[in-house]
Amino acid sequence: MLEKLKQAVYEANMELPRRGMVTYTWGNVSGIDRESGLFVIKPSGVDYDKLTPDDLVVMNLKGEKVEGRLNPSSDTKTHVELYNAFPSIGGIVHTHSPYAVGWAQTGEDIPCYGTTHADYFYGPVPCARHLTPEELEEDYERNTGKVIIEEFTRRGIDPVAVPAVICHSHGPFTWGKDAAQAVYHAVVLEEVAKMAAYTRMINRDAAPAPQHILDKHYMRKHGPNAYYGQK
Amino acid sequence: MLEKLKQAVYEANMELPRRGMVTYTWGNVSGIDRESGLFVIKPSGVDYDKLTPDDLVVMNLKGEKVEGRLNPSSDTKTHVELYNAFPSIGGIVHTHSPYAVGWAQTGEDIPCYGTTHADYFYGPVPCARHLTPEELEEDYERNTGKVIIEEFTRRGIDPVAVPAVICHSHGPFTWGKDAAQAVYHAVVLEEVAKMAAYTRMINRDAAPAPQHILDKHYMRKHGPNAYYGQK
Amino acid sequence: MLEKLKQAVYEANMELPRRGMVTYTWGNVSGIDRESGLFVIKPSGVDYDKLTPDDLVVMNLKGEKVEGRLNPSSDTKTHVELYNAFPSIGGIVHTHSPYAVGWAQTGEDIPCYGTTHADYFYGPVPCARHLTPEELEEDYERNTGKVIIEEFTRRGIDPVAVPAVICHSHGPFTWGKDAAQAVYHAVVLEEVAKMAAYTRMINRDAAPAPQHILDKHYMRKHGPNAYYGQK
Amino acid sequence: MLEKLKQAVYEANMELPRRGMVTYTWGNVSGIDRESGLFVIKPSGVDYDKLTPDDLVVMNLKGEKVEGRLNPSSDTKTHVELYNAFPSIGGIVHTHSPYAVGWAQTGEDIPCYGTTHADYFYGPVPCARHLTPEELEEDYERNTGKVIIEEFTRRGIDPVAVPAVICHSHGPFTWGKDAAQAVYHAVVLEEVAKMAAYTRMINRDAAPAPQHILDKHYMRKHGPNAYYGQK
Repeated sequence: MLEKLKQAVYEANMELPRRGMVTYTWGNVSGIDRESGLFVIKPSGVDYDKLTPDDLVVMNLKGEKVEGRLNPSSDTKTHVELYNAFPSIGGIVHTHSPYAVGWAQTGEDIPCYGTTHADYFYGPVPCARHLTPEELEEDYERNTGKVIIEEFTRRGIDPVAVPAVICHSHGPFTWGKDAAQAVYHAVVLEEVAKMAAYTRMINRDAAPAPQHILDKHYMRKHGPNAYYGQK
Repeated sequence: MLEKLKQAVYEANMELPRRGMVTYTWGNVSGIDRESGLFVIKPSGVDYDKLTPDDLVVMNLKGEKVEGRLNPSSDTKTHVELYNAFPSIGGIVHTHSPYAVGWAQTGEDIPCYGTTHADYFYGPVPCARHLTPEELEEDYERNTGKVIIEEFTRRGIDPVAVPAVICHSHGPFTWGKDAAQAVYHAVVLEEVAKMAAYTRMINRDAAPAPQHILDKHYMRKHGPNAYYGQK
Repeated sequence: MLEKLKQAVYEANMELPRRGMVTYTWGNVSGIDRESGLFVIKPSGVDYDKLTPDDLVVMNLKGEKVEGRLNPSSDTKTHVELYNAFPSIGGIVHTHSPYAVGWAQTGEDIPCYGTTHADYFYGPVPCARHLTPEELEEDYERNTGKVIIEEFTRRGIDPVAVPAVICHSHGPFTWGKDAAQAVYHAVVLEEVAKMAAYTRMINRDAAPAPQHILDKHYMRKHGPNAYYGQK
Repeated sequence: MLEKLKQAVYEANMELPRRGMVTYTWGNVSGIDRESGLFVIKPSGVDYDKLTPDDLVVMNLKGEKVEGRLNPSSDTKTHVELYNAFPSIGGIVHTHSPYAVGWAQTGEDIPCYGTTHADYFYGPVPCARHLTPEELEEDYERNTGKVIIEEFTRRGIDPVAVPAVICHSHGPFTWGKDAAQAVYHAVVLEEVAKMAAYTRMINRDAAPAPQHILDKHYMRKHGPNAYYGQK
């Protein structure tokens, strides 16, 4: 079932090592078929160079396994929460890419220092708070998703305009219209996190870019009057 | 038309990914034929591994498309302004190379800390100011060019002696006698930006190199008494 | 003798340059056969691209050479001490990987800033003190091992839960159930040391991750209720 | 003439790009035949991928060209001074490798933070002062050599024990018993400069390693009682 989606999610997973985004098995990609409400995700702890499309696991939005020989990624419940809360997204990625993790470990948002950032993320990339001991005890991965959603809701952030989050002391999740775009956003996030770290290295008092420049750059790539690329 | 120039500009564009200077489509190169007043530029948002010489767009110096199926780079008007203001340049490059962006995001000039810098850029690489909301509203890309030119004029910088600028919160533009040399300068700028960032990392109170050393290094590669390389 | 172990230790040694963990000859891997009490180690100062399984040296736990044409690694006595003190380990690695060395040269522990660290090292990676001039004079490499063991004993650290140490002004040692896992831990340590350095670069006042998050991450990969990966 | 030396110096030059030590043409290697007092050096500004052994230039110790179609490296007079002042060296390298340049641009010595450094450089890598305007005017490249020699003489440093220097606002020179070893030292210097920069990034108050550890590490690789490697 879902052979075409499996192939796409497989390709998206394999793009992570190709782009230098993962060490060993530290990453996972999923993609959803919104019609059936089923999503396909990488199995837990499987090496990328041994992964085949058949190893992928099919899950439903209650977090139940529908098909697959292997255990799904240990982060599967986080994916379930995000798919349920953000109905417009079609793919999710989790990595431990080092610059995004470097920021996540500080507990700070990644400031929007420039246009590279603004071209993809309309405002700072939020850092979601630590889980409380109770939340962690109850259901770590599910509540990781809930805390991300809480952060977006509390701040009024549109997950389509900011398709990324970093979880305090943990690392990034990104998403997109499908698995391929979610990986694209993971790569962009790492590049933006790197540039922001360089900015801090050079001058730790650097200010975020002014709002009118962010507005312009985001809008020239997105929205009704976008004019970047080919139509 | 301009088949030879198109080939040269195509080669110069492809040198960017080969040198690790671009992520995805984040860069563009143009080259001009001064006799006809026409320049050739990368189309907007096209992947480098799908780019062919035929995809390149031919523009005139009023910013009108003369030939090409595709939209030109979204930064085309910036190129137009620079070609009009700097008649001695023959090629222009824009990238989001990460160390140059790291500096651009601080709003500081890249100080001339040493001879690697002075061999190519005779003084600090200037950081051009933010556009005002009005300038941005009126014509973002054209006014980006105008602000760069204003910076060089105000400071009395010769664009041949300093073939690079960083735009605050944005990134670098470089230029040269042709497209290939503009790319060469983009690579050198990134290397120089990296070395300057390392210098800040090691000792944030480091001083720029003394003027007599900059003079010597620039002059041994450039000007009437240059003696670097083969004549 | 021990042909299978030699092959495994050879493969583990060759994984170091493949993973970009060594410059020239700066690293060594050993693996032990607990039944016979013999271990196999890289010879001293031999280039990785000339190394063959036959070059490996067989040693006993008194530090005597049992087989081999070549001198064993100059760090062999450190390996002997660790094998004797930590009976549950089966492989040891020493490298000069640059981020781990960067930390070792500060004399600080690598703080547990996040889950990437906690997934493998249950608490900070300890920095073992300098040898005194007397310890150094007496037997440098043997006492390097003794100081590591002293550090683990004094702090009550289980070497299985924290399979790594950095030696002040020197560099890292890692270990594991066999040579391959010891190399795996060396690669993870370097990645974790890099992320922690980035965190310091971004915000030098960043706090370590809270204990309940470390507990959770370590336990979801290790111990009786682990649920990461495939069983 | 000197065909064997030319081949060795050619190989040593080509090792620089292979080890990622040069951007474009930013580096040069020479090697000397002490019997004839002639040395072989890279021509100025020639691309590494076009370089052939026949392009190399033969010079004598007065700085006169003895053989070769091309101009020698613009740094040739610096090599002449070093060969004359340091009779025990057989090869010299100059690069603009980025971490060594990062330090050179601060004007600080590279502190001996650890054993990786001490294994090759017995004490800090000295930073030679700026040339005065008069020295620069008189003969830049020759006086660069003289200032290096002055630094070693003034501090009483043995150039065999510390086969490297960084020139303020410029970059590194390294040397060795022959061209190949000089390149080896250039690579080691860059690695050591990188580790020292990381140490500063992590904790800018880190102290150099204690003297007894430096003594031990240098002596276990060098001198009459060395026991690293195979004899």
